[in-house]
Amino acid sequence: MAGNSKKAILLIIDGLGDLPTPKTPLQMAKKPNLDRLAKNGMTGLLAPVKRYVVPGSDTSHLQLLGYEPSIFYHGRGPLEALGLGMDMRNGDVAFRTNFATVKNGRVIDRRAGRIDTKTAGALSRNLSMKIEDVQVEFKNSVEHRGALVLHGPGLSHNVCETDPHELGPVHECHPLDASREAAKTARIVNRFTEITGGMLSAAPENRKREKPANMLLLRGAGYYEKVPSFTERFGIEAACVAGGALYKGIARYLGMDVVIVPGATGDRNTNLRAKAQASVKALQDYDVVFMHVKACDSAGHDGDVEGKKRMLERIDAEAVPILEKSGAYIIITGDHSTPCCRKAHSGHEVPILVCGKGERTDGVTKFDEISCAEGGLGHIRGKDIVYLILNLIEKAEKYGS
Amino acid sequence: MAGNSKKAILLIIDGLGDLPTPKTPLQMAKKPNLDRLAKNGMTGLLAPVKRYVVPGSDTSHLQLLGYEPSIFYHGRGPLEALGLGMDMRNGDVAFRTNFATVKNGRVIDRRAGRIDTKTAGALSRNLSMKIEDVQVEFKNSVEHRGALVLHGPGLSHNVCETDPHELGPVHECHPLDASREAAKTARIVNRFTEITGGMLSAAPENRKREKPANMLLLRGAGYYEKVPSFTERFGIEAACVAGGALYKGIARYLGMDVVIVPGATGDRNTNLRAKAQASVKALQDYDVVFMHVKACDSAGHDGDVEGKKRMLERIDAEAVPILEKSGAYIIITGDHSTPCCRKAHSGHEVPILVCGKGERTDGVTKFDEISCAEGGLGHIRGKDIVYLILNLIEKAEKYGS
Repeated sequence: MAGNSKKAILLIIDGLGDLPTPKTPLQMAKKPNLDRLAKNGMTGLLAPVKRYVVPGSDTSHLQLLGYEPSIFYHGRGPLEALGLGMDMRNGDVAFRTNFATVKNGRVIDRRAGRIDTKTAGALSRNLSMKIEDVQVEFKNSVEHRGALVLHGPGLSHNVCETDPHELGPVHECHPLDASREAAKTARIVNRFTEITGGMLSAAPENRKREKPANMLLLRGAGYYEKVPSFTERFGIEAACVAGGALYKGIARYLGMDVVIVPGATGDRNTNLRAKAQASVKALQDYDVVFMHVKACDSAGHDGDVEGKKRMLERIDAEAVPILEKSGAYIIITGDHSTPCCRKAHSGHEVPILVCGKGERTDGVTKFDEISCAEGGLGHIRGKDIVYLILNLIEKAEKYGS
Repeated sequence: MAGNSKKAILLIIDGLGDLPTPKTPLQMAKKPNLDRLAKNGMTGLLAPVKRYVVPGSDTSHLQLLGYEPSIFYHGRGPLEALGLGMDMRNGDVAFRTNFATVKNGRVIDRRAGRIDTKTAGALSRNLSMKIEDVQVEFKNSVEHRGALVLHGPGLSHNVCETDPHELGPVHECHPLDASREAAKTARIVNRFTEITGGMLSAAPENRKREKPANMLLLRGAGYYEKVPSFTERFGIEAACVAGGALYKGIARYLGMDVVIVPGATGDRNTNLRAKAQASVKALQDYDVVFMHVKACDSAGHDGDVEGKKRMLERIDAEAVPILEKSGAYIIITGDHSTPCCRKAHSGHEVPILVCGKGERTDGVTKFDEISCAEGGLGHIRGKDIVYLILNLIEKAEKYGS
């Protein structure tokens, strides 16, 4: 489509990179479309944050979208809350939450028996409340997950988590500095935990559950501060197509519009065709679309080589041809490696490809961790990506004259 | 050995890189073991400090071990003194020293006829003394070499050297700024030089020497300040296996344990098998072992291509197989190039290889300056090395969540 000749789609495949055992999932996957784009374009290896630094998904996406995390990252909680559509004002504090099962003050299941979304939704009614002069807003998302926002004056994110991250005693929330703000925040968190613990224990939805969702565990404290928008900073309009709350939240944080796509679930059942079609459609109104696919990372965390390979094959078959047909420049990479053998993020670089009409090419014909090491982009960094896109679509401002 | 699967050995071959005349010593050397590691692992080129910056061995090692020299390098003297086992306290000042032969106030041999270590040791008795409120401690090391530490209040390293670095008049020590501290330090250095000059001239050991060691020349002024330890900064335990005082001193400066290896001399007769065995043994107690081999640099300074090649072949035959058998991740590189044709350090990058179970590979099959330019690590920098190691051994802290 000629109208897209100065537009770009940035596809981030979460946790894309891996290690060879003896081949990587990318090397094993049948992915004729990705390989063709690699052949017709330029490839390389991307260090999302810095060489060998192990990125979180939050810091990495900020960096890939041009927002240096050492300046713009203030914790995970606010990004999750924004992704659930919750409003945040300067100075608000937010947490990620888990419904958990607690017995005699000890967590016996951090996910309350992987509670279903519908039951969690029913339990979530009336869990928002005012404590002191702070409005405490809770919202559940998928299964046991949710977010908590504290709106009000004099708060601090410098408090410890109540989530022990393992089975064992629930942590009390303590201030992590001597400030009045941290003391107040910890007090409110503890009061909220106590009140909601009582409400949940008494909730009819929990009565028949073997693993009652009788506690909200908090982690990922962060504060919200409005940042200059992506458009203000880079002079182009951007939209986001994603399933996972974090990615939608990051987009909202940066002032990008989030396109709602039915069937975009953020898991391995996500509707990739619908997401790709929505991305291409959004090019009518935006210069660049950031499309995110989560499930490869989840498979990596599960150590599921076969699942990661299958998801890559789905992306190749279902999403890539639609993106390619748009006529836009296409950049495909990941936010970090999640090697299946480690079941965790790693600091290994991630393959990247850049493809579009009239762009340079290299000799690489396959899109994988080993082949792309020989690519013409060399070793590039997360902070280069926005400038790469601006240059591709001829929207870069000249530096000097 | 399975117990080493999350450990690493960093082998630094001092002055490793060279220029082709028409081949480099690495290209000429028979080194089947290094080449096999290159083939089984990833290779690249390392700029120890910055691209094309000519590093000293001191600044380069600090950078390779994660200590930015612009922050943590305070002169060579303290590192040499620490390497000789001398104690230093915050604010102490130290110098490297040479026994020299002086006649009528002029240096006629900067190394006192390359005085042997035993005679130098005998001459060194009673050269420590108190001047004003400063305790001046001298210690000799190998041949003409030694170190001097000034313990006391109100000192400064900002004074000139007494070593003229060529034949000619001994320099008087002058303060290099208007501070009271620099004036005091220069006064003490000059007094020390005068007193020890008299003592050495009268020493019986000098009577029969054609080139009497009748003067201590001072250079490399620096001050000591305790820095956060390697373990505090990176969360892993590290040990050092080295012959040369500087390298042991750097390790002590960073709070690493130094393994004493009989036969580790820091010259071309060093016992490489013993050093490699000690490195592997240290893996039982440490996460990473930094092993240093000096003699390739010395051969480079001497313009001795054949000697450099032979030393590389010794490393390949005697050390590498022992390191490889440990099962640990192995990183082999240099701290800088010392091209034989220049007889000096240069700013050319140094080959690097990284090898270990389950890691990515590339198409490079030889370990040398030319082959490694095509390696999958690309062009990496000294400051990346600690993060590379942390990522390899899965001890990196995630940045973000």
